[in-house]
Amino acid sequence: MKENKINVKIILNDSEKICSANEGDNLLDVIRKNNIDFDAPCNGNGSCGKCKCRLKENTEIGVSSKKHLSQSELNSGVRLACDTTITSDLTVELTNKIKDMTVLISGVEKEFKINPSVRKYYIVLEKPTLDDQRDDLIRIKDFLKESFNIDNVDIDLTTLRKIPKALREDDYKITVTLFDNKIIDVEASDTTKNNYGLAIDIGTTTIAVYLLSLYDGSQMDVISEVNNQRNYGADVISRINYTLENPDGLKKLNASIVSQLNNIIKNIAKRNNINLDNIYDTVIVGNTTMIHLLLGIDPKNIAKAPYISGFTEAMELKPKDIGFNFKSNISIMPGVSSYVGSDITAGILSSGMLESEKYSLLLDLGTNGEMAIGNKDEVITCSTAAGPAFEGANIKHGVGGILGAISKIDLSKEEKIETVGNQPPCGICGSGVLDAVSEMIKYSLIDETGRMFDEEDDDFEFEEYEYLTKDLVEIDGMKQYVLAKNPDGDIISFTQKDVREVQLAKAAINAGIQILVKEKNLDFNDLEYLYLGGGFGNYMNVKSSLQIGMIPLELDGKIKSIGNCAGSGAKMYLLSKEYRNLIIDKVNTSKYIELSNRKEFQEYFVNGMMMERIYEPAEKSLDKEVTVDAF
Amino acid sequence: MKENKINVKIILNDSEKICSANEGDNLLDVIRKNNIDFDAPCNGNGSCGKCKCRLKENTEIGVSSKKHLSQSELNSGVRLACDTTITSDLTVELTNKIKDMTVLISGVEKEFKINPSVRKYYIVLEKPTLDDQRDDLIRIKDFLKESFNIDNVDIDLTTLRKIPKALREDDYKITVTLFDNKIIDVEASDTTKNNYGLAIDIGTTTIAVYLLSLYDGSQMDVISEVNNQRNYGADVISRINYTLENPDGLKKLNASIVSQLNNIIKNIAKRNNINLDNIYDTVIVGNTTMIHLLLGIDPKNIAKAPYISGFTEAMELKPKDIGFNFKSNISIMPGVSSYVGSDITAGILSSGMLESEKYSLLLDLGTNGEMAIGNKDEVITCSTAAGPAFEGANIKHGVGGILGAISKIDLSKEEKIETVGNQPPCGICGSGVLDAVSEMIKYSLIDETGRMFDEEDDDFEFEEYEYLTKDLVEIDGMKQYVLAKNPDGDIISFTQKDVREVQLAKAAINAGIQILVKEKNLDFNDLEYLYLGGGFGNYMNVKSSLQIGMIPLELDGKIKSIGNCAGSGAKMYLLSKEYRNLIIDKVNTSKYIELSNRKEFQEYFVNGMMMERIYEPAEKSLDKEVTVDAF
Repeated sequence: MKENKINVKIILNDSEKICSANEGDNLLDVIRKNNIDFDAPCNGNGSCGKCKCRLKENTEIGVSSKKHLSQSELNSGVRLACDTTITSDLTVELTNKIKDMTVLISGVEKEFKINPSVRKYYIVLEKPTLDDQRDDLIRIKDFLKESFNIDNVDIDLTTLRKIPKALREDDYKITVTLFDNKIIDVEASDTTKNNYGLAIDIGTTTIAVYLLSLYDGSQMDVISEVNNQRNYGADVISRINYTLENPDGLKKLNASIVSQLNNIIKNIAKRNNINLDNIYDTVIVGNTTMIHLLLGIDPKNIAKAPYISGFTEAMELKPKDIGFNFKSNISIMPGVSSYVGSDITAGILSSGMLESEKYSLLLDLGTNGEMAIGNKDEVITCSTAAGPAFEGANIKHGVGGILGAISKIDLSKEEKIETVGNQPPCGICGSGVLDAVSEMIKYSLIDETGRMFDEEDDDFEFEEYEYLTKDLVEIDGMKQYVLAKNPDGDIISFTQKDVREVQLAKAAINAGIQILVKEKNLDFNDLEYLYLGGGFGNYMNVKSSLQIGMIPLELDGKIKSIGNCAGSGAKMYLLSKEYRNLIIDKVNTSKYIELSNRKEFQEYFVNGMMMERIYEPAEKSLDKEVTVDAF
Repeated sequence: MKENKINVKIILNDSEKICSANEGDNLLDVIRKNNIDFDAPCNGNGSCGKCKCRLKENTEIGVSSKKHLSQSELNSGVRLACDTTITSDLTVELTNKIKDMTVLISGVEKEFKINPSVRKYYIVLEKPTLDDQRDDLIRIKDFLKESFNIDNVDIDLTTLRKIPKALREDDYKITVTLFDNKIIDVEASDTTKNNYGLAIDIGTTTIAVYLLSLYDGSQMDVISEVNNQRNYGADVISRINYTLENPDGLKKLNASIVSQLNNIIKNIAKRNNINLDNIYDTVIVGNTTMIHLLLGIDPKNIAKAPYISGFTEAMELKPKDIGFNFKSNISIMPGVSSYVGSDITAGILSSGMLESEKYSLLLDLGTNGEMAIGNKDEVITCSTAAGPAFEGANIKHGVGGILGAISKIDLSKEEKIETVGNQPPCGICGSGVLDAVSEMIKYSLIDETGRMFDEEDDDFEFEEYEYLTKDLVEIDGMKQYVLAKNPDGDIISFTQKDVREVQLAKAAINAGIQILVKEKNLDFNDLEYLYLGGGFGNYMNVKSSLQIGMIPLELDGKIKSIGNCAGSGAKMYLLSKEYRNLIIDKVNTSKYIELSNRKEFQEYFVNGMMMERIYEPAEKSLDKEVTVDAF
């Protein structure tokens, strides 16, 4: 015998819904209570004038409606929902339904619908009576089940403690924040827009922290810093060694990254004027060692055969357990093995290879060359001990991609080198190393075995470029090619030993690629793309990688640089449950190939040492000759 | 091509299992690895001689077998599994399979098979190789899945951190502790017996902490203390008021119970010589307010209509979030409403009513009279505002069940009263209050309306007991019956107002019982039992409860005291997943009746005020008269 119940028919595009209301209810509250997506940006305080709807029945015109709507709108029955009081049965036509938000992740240029694990629901609850003594939590859970079909809801104690006050602060109007099926926050009033997440890429060298809105998927800010752990060793192995050699080594490395992240996150919240408590999810990717150090898990078994990590799978962790002093859930993206970490799986996800029928390759060059082959059905990974040649390490004048690093080399030009930031040269970085070998092959300054030309050799092959041989010198018994001089007048050269380092690295990478492709009985022609991940992929000259035989020539034209794909993948994991489930599922069923245990690897490796010339120098034009003469 | 694989056929009662082993494997390890329950109390170190098995094939006799087994055993092929090395195919007959452990909970005298949520598994893992680079966690998870069919296993960070070391400390032999599907501990070697749990009953007055072995279900110890919160108020309402009147009231009450429990638990572990870290599950019951105060959840809405608690459902919580400084999981048993807490649901569980086809009642008398009716299909609860008469409060000379409290009254005897501990009388406790009214009815010292006999009345009904009326006095205008004098010579009496208090309380309880029984359209004859919970149920004179009309006479003969049923229920919840699921399920579907909202309650209540005499005084024997004369 509900005598005062009023029916409100809400028409939305082609569908309609009959909602029950009480006399005196606010129309906007009724719309929200019935889980209808409807945009009311100012949360019904009458300031934005956006919650327009058209009423079939004549109703009183509220103050805000009068203020925001034109006379013709008012005449045709348009009202603002926020200042419409329901007095009798109503038929309401909605127009401004919220569109599914899509987001574009730059770098990979991927557009997708956002659907984060964290969702905020603004709800208006029935108030308790003697007839309805449900406790606060059940009242919320029942509503979530009835209105949103969310069942088996869990909650932690911290959030539970907030409920009694939050419910009564704004008359049982609250915003409930869920992480999947877990209530992680309860706030009075509508706070749906205060919903933020972080994507963090912990590189061995650099940390990048991205702040995103989980309400609309937009990237709000990014902070990038050098990883403070560098003080304890430049690469993964030297950091593991530090934990082995120092009793509190693990503790120190752990404290270093935890406190650095605590600081960055405090800063990024502050400078964007958001409450730390409204950051609800933090996705972290990194190589397996970085993740172990972050979580305080002993990484020592990663360093020696058979290379066993403590864990690699996806984790949802409490920030307090890690040592973070913010409240966000921590999502660790899944990795595959000790040397194929979540930085690589993030790359796999962001490349898009898992969404295609055709197989693609992903190649990430760092200390190790991690790679993957995959399509929508599966992914297979391996890691080649390529050595850190492309990080500038083990190269006589090698440096990272710093200001003044030689990043491009073209021996046909008057200015043979280009440096980062056009600064005076200080060394050679990865892309420069690649170019150096490639150019020397091109101009027959090294032969197909990698041996540098010297005076005892026969005639130089390209007569018109013979002048280049003048820069071939021998210092302390080591043949080397002089590229430049630094401001102090010291030479910056590429040595015979450097060539050998590159040969080893590129042979390992090439062998890895061959094995992955053969593993699926594929031909290079069957591949859709070769994705190059990491910063190096953005800078390197693709032709050089083909010239030195690192990447098979058949892949020419299929090579795509996808930039900081680890960060992009972390953002996708943060913004989309579907992508989260996709990569977890694919990693769970993925296959990891231990190359050192494959007989055919040695064969491919030895064959891959050779460097057949692909690109020959152009005939010198007169114009060029003049320039050279002037030099 | 597994060339060295050996088949071991293990015969167990009527079934057999073919297990695969390697040459050189230890037989006990193989038995355990294949998830066969087999008792090896000393964990295979050769000291106990218990792991006997009979081998069909002749095998070498190990040192321990020689030591522990008789020559005839050895001749018939009996060996200890722990010192038998597998060299070729074997057929092994096991005899000492571990029996399903059952446990008897005293008080309710209930025997059941233990199956706690916490289980420890001793497992022996394959060691990693280059061909098997599974990470430590996956290695454990795969084993749990293959051998025990436990899937979707979760883990927290603290436990994850222990894994790399634990695995390598005893050569990949570890004990994994699971709470349902969650790994909560990993230890080197076999620690399956170091598995403990706590059942805690937080009463408004008293706290009881029981220590139990989760390995065999035995109760190892109990510590009982007065709840330190008594300093902030004797009952639930006064403690809630304390939180309302003091800004840090909730914080103080919370800190009081948390620190008291921290101390008790530290002590109970210490005096039983067990490691706090081996306490894995702690089940806590208490009334809804006590649970709110323990968890730091604001209880203020419990105290005023419509009586809303923050939550009542079952919770699994982290000890750290509560403020406990031990690691055990915290299981909060589910309650039903603000005034039917988990102490009552624990009573419902331990009564056994949920396992019977027939309906039974449970009655728990305290400040409120909480009651329930239920059978295997459902349970319905209510709470009567019975007032604290039976706790001795609101009674002129009322006291708790302390030494010297008058606990029994028999007016036919020379010594009319009995006191707790036979100490000089100091006041009247609950059972004494009940007896006082009952006896006065019996001897017509009060009439059916509760009015005390006085001089203006007609003749006294039982002439031979007329001498009793001498103890009826009037002091300060209040009629009262003198029961005794305390050592200081002050009288201890039962007043007309006290009778009224009891009348109100018993009428409310009687009305509650009537409503519950009518709710199911039952007759009192349809009920199997009326269970009396709480300490009071143990002490009270059942006949008195019938005499005063608190419990319907039809239930005479069906009344069963079940003692500290809250503690018993907590133990059952701790020791048996089946009981845990049963009570969670029944509470979820239970119905709570708000009596104050029922029209018929008033009717029953008013009718229940009357006290019809049931038991009359015995004819006085000569012997009695003599005694009385001598008095």
